[in-house]
Amino acid sequence: MIASVRIVGAGLIGSSIGMALSTHDIAVEMIDSDPRSQALARDLVGSVVIAEPELIIIATPLSAFKKVFEEQIRLYPDSIVMDIGSIKTKPIHDVEIIDTKNANFVATHPMAGREVGGAESARGDLFVSRSWVITPTESTSPDAVEKVRELIQVLGAHVVVLDPTSHDAAVARISHLPQILSSLLASTLENVPGEWLELAGAGLRDTTRIAASDENLWKEIIHSNREEISQLLLSLQNDIGVFIAALGDEESIAQLLLKGKSGKMRIPGKHGGKAREYTYLPIVIEDKPGQLGAIFNECALMQVNVEDLTIEHSPGQLNALITLALNANDASILSDHLSAIGWNVHPIRK
Amino acid sequence: MIASVRIVGAGLIGSSIGMALSTHDIAVEMIDSDPRSQALARDLVGSVVIAEPELIIIATPLSAFKKVFEEQIRLYPDSIVMDIGSIKTKPIHDVEIIDTKNANFVATHPMAGREVGGAESARGDLFVSRSWVITPTESTSPDAVEKVRELIQVLGAHVVVLDPTSHDAAVARISHLPQILSSLLASTLENVPGEWLELAGAGLRDTTRIAASDENLWKEIIHSNREEISQLLLSLQNDIGVFIAALGDEESIAQLLLKGKSGKMRIPGKHGGKAREYTYLPIVIEDKPGQLGAIFNECALMQVNVEDLTIEHSPGQLNALITLALNANDASILSDHLSAIGWNVHPIRK
Repeated sequence: MIASVRIVGAGLIGSSIGMALSTHDIAVEMIDSDPRSQALARDLVGSVVIAEPELIIIATPLSAFKKVFEEQIRLYPDSIVMDIGSIKTKPIHDVEIIDTKNANFVATHPMAGREVGGAESARGDLFVSRSWVITPTESTSPDAVEKVRELIQVLGAHVVVLDPTSHDAAVARISHLPQILSSLLASTLENVPGEWLELAGAGLRDTTRIAASDENLWKEIIHSNREEISQLLLSLQNDIGVFIAALGDEESIAQLLLKGKSGKMRIPGKHGGKAREYTYLPIVIEDKPGQLGAIFNECALMQVNVEDLTIEHSPGQLNALITLALNANDASILSDHLSAIGWNVHPIRK
Repeated sequence: MIASVRIVGAGLIGSSIGMALSTHDIAVEMIDSDPRSQALARDLVGSVVIAEPELIIIATPLSAFKKVFEEQIRLYPDSIVMDIGSIKTKPIHDVEIIDTKNANFVATHPMAGREVGGAESARGDLFVSRSWVITPTESTSPDAVEKVRELIQVLGAHVVVLDPTSHDAAVARISHLPQILSSLLASTLENVPGEWLELAGAGLRDTTRIAASDENLWKEIIHSNREEISQLLLSLQNDIGVFIAALGDEESIAQLLLKGKSGKMRIPGKHGGKAREYTYLPIVIEDKPGQLGAIFNECALMQVNVEDLTIEHSPGQLNALITLALNANDASILSDHLSAIGWNVHPIRK
């Protein structure tokens, strides 16, 4: 296992990595070109001075990567180096120009972030249960890949291996297009009467949340991946045309909305992992301590594994509704059992 | 104050209204054409039989409104009637045809909803701190408006008065356009390799959340408001063209993203009214039956009430992460207690 890590770039990602590693007895040194960010990150992380880091993590904006990489391998030619940039073909290309051997460079991309940036937004659990892509090339040393893989697992993330080109195509679809659409949608609010904005609900808030993201970070990402993105935007213009043509007919509208629903359903569970087909079992309970425990004891008794659950209750309300997500067989067993012993179960019949 | 309310339509909105009113000593009768929905809603709400309701709330889909309105005013010609539909010009027009006096009808629209529907998703606090539009016309009796206004305030919402046409223009921008964009974005995921979707982060999840909405509900809303929507979609096609033209230049991209940021900043409040302040307590558990039960038994022992929770786990992983939402005091008590008896708790230090 890696024992010492130098992190260059004390933004959200770099500082979050630092916070998490330092709780695992790994020595971390935080570096940033901005003295204030560096001081804050050092305090948060418990940064130490490292003479010769085993691993260097470059967590700067894309545009600073090349310069920082050159500086660091001049100082520490034997260290493993990884990046965390949102585009993978570009830093790999930068590295190939600087260091034709480049066996010690591992390109990676943690699929985690927040719409707020900086060390002050860092959290040690930012990567827990998230995917973290690595894109090794033919030149990359297997030993370096293995060390980086171990480190990512320490951070709680699971490793996904992709080639760099597939990675950039994937993130255009699942990250860059959503960012651009959220920004375009939010732009339309610039000239709406203020009174109308008072009607905003959770739908508008969620769809525009990432429009608050850092434009300086994103301009580089979008610009670097502009070829993929351009194709997707042209295709979206076309999709909008199809939607406009459907507006006169309810069934055509429903069909288009259904396509969206089926695309949405393909997004895996809360974090990686396949989206699974659950059966949902609603149960009305009294809203007081002990009720959930009692239900889960019955689940354990019947050897039923709860995959997910939601609780719905409101202040001042005597009843709460919990909805358990189960496999179909478990749902049937549990529903019968709970009903038989007097719980208020409302199975959904399909 | 109104003392008895008949709610026709036991979906999300109708059932949520029922739950909230019944905690305020208002007699509520839930009606639904589907027996299962009606039974569940009656259980949740504590529905009673009402001989002559003072107020009838029509909480059906838009397409059922006209028929239900006719039935109800035939049964109860003296009751006040309100609707909760997402479009206001259409039901007002329906009512004018049926009942030319129509003094007792108040058209309203609560700005609250969820991407999941049905009585099983109802919650009594759905309307707390939300806007609730009323669109009285020249025919509407001031007394009926006043009674409806009082009722909305009991539900915790604040009343916004608009004329019906302005309402429909406003919701096209702040509700219907976000819905369509979310669906179009999610549609693009239909043909993406499954492996790529494993990389999905919170940005994609948030922007596509409402793509899971009920297409049968939305096809009616979108169709009814198609003239407003058509203009907005044409304008969006144009905005996308502008974005494509900007892709070659980082500063132009940043300018467009900044317009989005400034539009986003115009949305009032951070989370739509009073956000409930929870403290989140992550706990790593083994992914097997009995673990959740054991944790909830400890919650009950410590008299700690769990407000909400999420479970994150992936196939092939031995551990799962559950995150409990608690009030700050309970989180502190439970965190110390669970740590002391050997659970793997990761309190977030702010």
